[in-house]
Amino acid sequence: MKRVKLIVAYDGSNYCGWQVQANGNTIEAELNKHLSTLFNEEIKVIGASRTDSGVHALCNIAVFDTQTKMPADKISYALNQRLPEDIRIQQSEEVADDYHPRHLNSIKTYHYRIENAGFPMPTNRLYTHFTNHTLDIGKMREAAVFLVGEHDFKSFCSVAAQVETTIRTITKIAVEKEDSIITIAVSGTGFLYNMVRIIAGTLMEIGQEKFEPEKILTILDARDRELAGPTAPAKGLLLYSYVFTD
Amino acid sequence: MKRVKLIVAYDGSNYCGWQVQANGNTIEAELNKHLSTLFNEEIKVIGASRTDSGVHALCNIAVFDTQTKMPADKISYALNQRLPEDIRIQQSEEVADDYHPRHLNSIKTYHYRIENAGFPMPTNRLYTHFTNHTLDIGKMREAAVFLVGEHDFKSFCSVAAQVETTIRTITKIAVEKEDSIITIAVSGTGFLYNMVRIIAGTLMEIGQEKFEPEKILTILDARDRELAGPTAPAKGLLLYSYVFTD
Repeated sequence: MKRVKLIVAYDGSNYCGWQVQANGNTIEAELNKHLSTLFNEEIKVIGASRTDSGVHALCNIAVFDTQTKMPADKISYALNQRLPEDIRIQQSEEVADDYHPRHLNSIKTYHYRIENAGFPMPTNRLYTHFTNHTLDIGKMREAAVFLVGEHDFKSFCSVAAQVETTIRTITKIAVEKEDSIITIAVSGTGFLYNMVRIIAGTLMEIGQEKFEPEKILTILDARDRELAGPTAPAKGLLLYSYVFTD
Repeated sequence: MKRVKLIVAYDGSNYCGWQVQANGNTIEAELNKHLSTLFNEEIKVIGASRTDSGVHALCNIAVFDTQTKMPADKISYALNQRLPEDIRIQQSEEVADDYHPRHLNSIKTYHYRIENAGFPMPTNRLYTHFTNHTLDIGKMREAAVFLVGEHDFKSFCSVAAQVETTIRTITKIAVEKEDSIITIAVSGTGFLYNMVRIIAGTLMEIGQEKFEPEKILTILDARDRELAGPTAPAKGLLLYSYVFTD
């Protein structure tokens, strides 16, 4: 038996997220199906990040155990032959028998991409959220500064009841604009449910000058989801990098 | 009667190119259909650039005559309400009655985008051509220099028989790399059939060091399609900008 780690990239447009579910196809289900066929044994992967329906990833991580004699670094090639073209393994390698990505310290970076123009550009439509409201990225940057550090992010969490604590640490937020595309890059050691999409929705309201950047402090203090902005649409979100810090 | 000019952006993935044809849907057919319904009169657009099946555009140009009283600058909004989301009008404006985009001098810029990495990234797959062969962009740049200027591009044309002359002028070629994406940007006053895709295919062979950059001179001199590289796949090609110089 050996344990194998995969780095998995996908276009989430046509999937009901990462995690296996009864209704609708998922990334995890595709991996389980094709790995099981490839090795002729039942394979169940463990995922590092359970991305939502429609969210994209450059580098999610899946781990599984197998009896196969195929060298671990060749599995990426064999599996890519079978997977649909919107899922591609970037790397496969053997890891220790007790390796578990969710038990390791890491910094994940998500990108939330917004197309800010008069009309949407069709070739951006699958991977950006479009708005024609003018966004002041200076204001968005001012607001982002207040989110960096360890805070109680309960106001930025859709289903706070499911977790022990809503305290998380954001290590960095950058807001950049290139042509008509604004990218909000959020790095942190862990994220609550919908946290990055609610941050993006809130920063967009501040960019529209619906309220001042300092309002972030009030929203954090309130620990109340009602005070933050809307959850920005899934298709703008991309799991961009995943760095283990242990 | 007035003449209206549209700037049209599209994702060409699901179309059989620009020009109306019997089998398969096209950009021109979608525009004719929705404009005719919108104005309740038969509308036939004239296109500036007849892009091929699978090719994308940020800024193709369509012109048509109409009896409508709708102000020309509002047509973009009305038409975007009806068009599928992979076609979006970026601007609409009234032009002179004798305006014809193909009779005006212009510089068009095409981008050919190549993903050069170990494995393809699913979120790039629709708008780049993937290769895992290492490409030396220094060599590609050296070769590109030989293509700039007025030359007989017969070797870089798929169906030379259809045109009076195969002499064309390339005003600029740039080869840039950002992360794993190489962009070949080709600007010129006019292009032969498949010219940019054959240039891209040839520069890729030079990038793979199949032959030296100077081979471009031999290929140009030969006036023979057989000597140039393959026609690179359509999905990597994007009509990027269209500037009228009159």
